[in-house]
Amino acid sequence: MSDNATPFCAAVDWGTSSFRLWLLAEDGGVLGEKRSREGMQSAVAAGGFPAVLDSHLASLSAPPDLPVIVCGMAGARQGWVEAPYVEAPAALDAIALNAVRVESVARDVRILPGVAQRDSARPDVMRGEETQIMGLGADGLVCLPGTHSKWASVSDNRIEAFSTFMTGETFALMAGQSILRHTVGENHEALARPEAFRKGVSDCLDAPEAWLNRLFALRAGPLLGTATPEDAAARLSGLLIGAEIAGARRLLPDARSVVLCASGPLCDLYEAALVHAGYETRIEDADIAVRSGLLAAARRCFS
Amino acid sequence: MSDNATPFCAAVDWGTSSFRLWLLAEDGGVLGEKRSREGMQSAVAAGGFPAVLDSHLASLSAPPDLPVIVCGMAGARQGWVEAPYVEAPAALDAIALNAVRVESVARDVRILPGVAQRDSARPDVMRGEETQIMGLGADGLVCLPGTHSKWASVSDNRIEAFSTFMTGETFALMAGQSILRHTVGENHEALARPEAFRKGVSDCLDAPEAWLNRLFALRAGPLLGTATPEDAAARLSGLLIGAEIAGARRLLPDARSVVLCASGPLCDLYEAALVHAGYETRIEDADIAVRSGLLAAARRCFS
Repeated sequence: MSDNATPFCAAVDWGTSSFRLWLLAEDGGVLGEKRSREGMQSAVAAGGFPAVLDSHLASLSAPPDLPVIVCGMAGARQGWVEAPYVEAPAALDAIALNAVRVESVARDVRILPGVAQRDSARPDVMRGEETQIMGLGADGLVCLPGTHSKWASVSDNRIEAFSTFMTGETFALMAGQSILRHTVGENHEALARPEAFRKGVSDCLDAPEAWLNRLFALRAGPLLGTATPEDAAARLSGLLIGAEIAGARRLLPDARSVVLCASGPLCDLYEAALVHAGYETRIEDADIAVRSGLLAAARRCFS
Repeated sequence: MSDNATPFCAAVDWGTSSFRLWLLAEDGGVLGEKRSREGMQSAVAAGGFPAVLDSHLASLSAPPDLPVIVCGMAGARQGWVEAPYVEAPAALDAIALNAVRVESVARDVRILPGVAQRDSARPDVMRGEETQIMGLGADGLVCLPGTHSKWASVSDNRIEAFSTFMTGETFALMAGQSILRHTVGENHEALARPEAFRKGVSDCLDAPEAWLNRLFALRAGPLLGTATPEDAAARLSGLLIGAEIAGARRLLPDARSVVLCASGPLCDLYEAALVHAGYETRIEDADIAVRSGLLAAARRCFS
C-alpha cells in the first residue's frame, strides 16, 4: 500500500544553468520543491554535484535512503557521471533502462541518458528533453521551445527522429549583439505586436531562403519609414520562430497538430506562431512533463 | 590638355569604421593614398570630419583648392552632412547629380548619396556600394560581399533592385558568441577545408528552411563523431554564404553569371561558393571599383 505523504523518490532536472528538485510521492504528488541556479556549469564551483544535491535534499528533510532520479546535463561527459546517449529511434523505456548509477555516493542516484541521432546528414543530441517527452505520453509531433528548441516525432512511445533549432540563442544574439540591437531595443514583448509577429512568421514560412535579408530589413524598414521600430522585436521573433517551423516541416514528418510543451510567454508565442502556420496545438506544461517523465523512470528504476 | 601628374580631385570612401583617400589624376592615375581607421564612428572623436579630411590632404600636400568627392557613411544622417538617398531603380548618373556640397568648408567637397529601396516588402539601403557599382560599369547581377553583403541587379547603368544580407555579421556572432564558438574555434580559414565549405553551401541551397537546425548540427556532428570539429568553421561559412546565394536567387532576377566585387580571402570564398552554385563569375577588385566610381562622379561634379 502506498503512502502518499511519504516521498517515493527525489526527481531532479539538472540542466546547464538550472537545478530543479521535487520530492515525489509514489502517485506523483509533489511533497517538496527546490529551484536554484546551480546548473552543471556552477555546480562544480559550488562544491561539486554531490554537495549541491545533498544540501537541497537536507533542506527538504529527505530520508537518507531516498533514491534520486536525475535527467539533463548532469549526465553529459563534462557533467557528474556520463550517461551515454541512447540512439534514436529510441523507445522511451530504453531511456529509463539505461540510467547510470552514481557509484561514488551511498544514496541510490541514477542519471538518465540523453538521446543521440547519429545520422551524418542530421546529427543531433538532446539531454533532458527526452524525459519531458517521456512524461508527455503523447504520439505525434512534439515541440519544446527554448534556447535550443527541440522538435521530435514520437510514435508508439518511441522518439523516431528529432531536430534542434538554435532559435532562442539566435534571437538573443541578433537582438542584443547585432546591428539590429539599435532597432529592436529592450522591449521584446512580441505578442504586444501580434500583426508584426505574424508577418515575421509568414515571411519565413513563405520565403525561408530570404532570412539573411529579412534580418537586415528589420533595420532598413524603420530607417525608410516603411515599418515602425516598435514592431522590430516582434518581427524578429516571428521570423525566427517561423524559420524554426519551416525547418521542422522540412526535416520531420509533417502533422496537422503539434504538442507544444512549454510555459509562460514563450508558450504563448509558439502557440500563436503554430496556429498562424495552420497547426492545431495541444499545450502541455513543461514542468509537469519533466516531473511525469522522471516519475515514470523512477518507477522503472526503483520499484 | 590634362596633366597626369597634377591631381584632379581627392576621392574618399568614408565608411562606418574606415577612411580611404586617393589623390587622382584626371585619367584615374593614383598620385597618393591614405588609409586609416577614422571611420564615421571615430571621426567625430578625432576632431570632426573636416579636421580628419584636412590632415590627410595636408599629409599628401594636396592643393588647398583641390575638390573632394566622398562616398559612404559620411553622408548618413548621423554622418558629416546628410546626402539623402536616391530611390531605386536608380540611374548611376542620378547618384552623381545628387551629390550634396558641404557648405561649412571653403574647399569644394561633395558627398554622394546612397540608394534606398522604399518597398515595404523588401526595404533596403546602401551607402558606398552604389559608388562601387557605378565604378564596375557592368550590367547584370553584382555581388559585394561583406559584413552586410549587397546584391544588386543592374541594367542600362541603373540599379534596378538590390538586397542586403547580414552574412558577415551573422558569421562573426555565431563563430564568436554562440555555443558554436566551442566547436568553430579560432581558425576560420574555410578554404583550407574546401569539401566541408562546399557541403555547407549545398546544404543551404538544397534545404534553405533548415538553417536553424544546420547551425546546431555543427555542434552535434563533432560531438557524435559524424563530423570533425576542424570542418566546423568551413561548414558554418559555407552555410551562411549558401544561404545568401539562395536568398539572392529568391529576391533578385536570376542570371547565369555574377560580377563579384571583392578582394582577399572573402573574394576566394565567394568565388568558390558561386562556382559551386553553378554561376559563372567575373571578379572585380573592390578598391579599383570604388575609385573608378568616385572618379566618374567627380568628373560629373567638377568638370
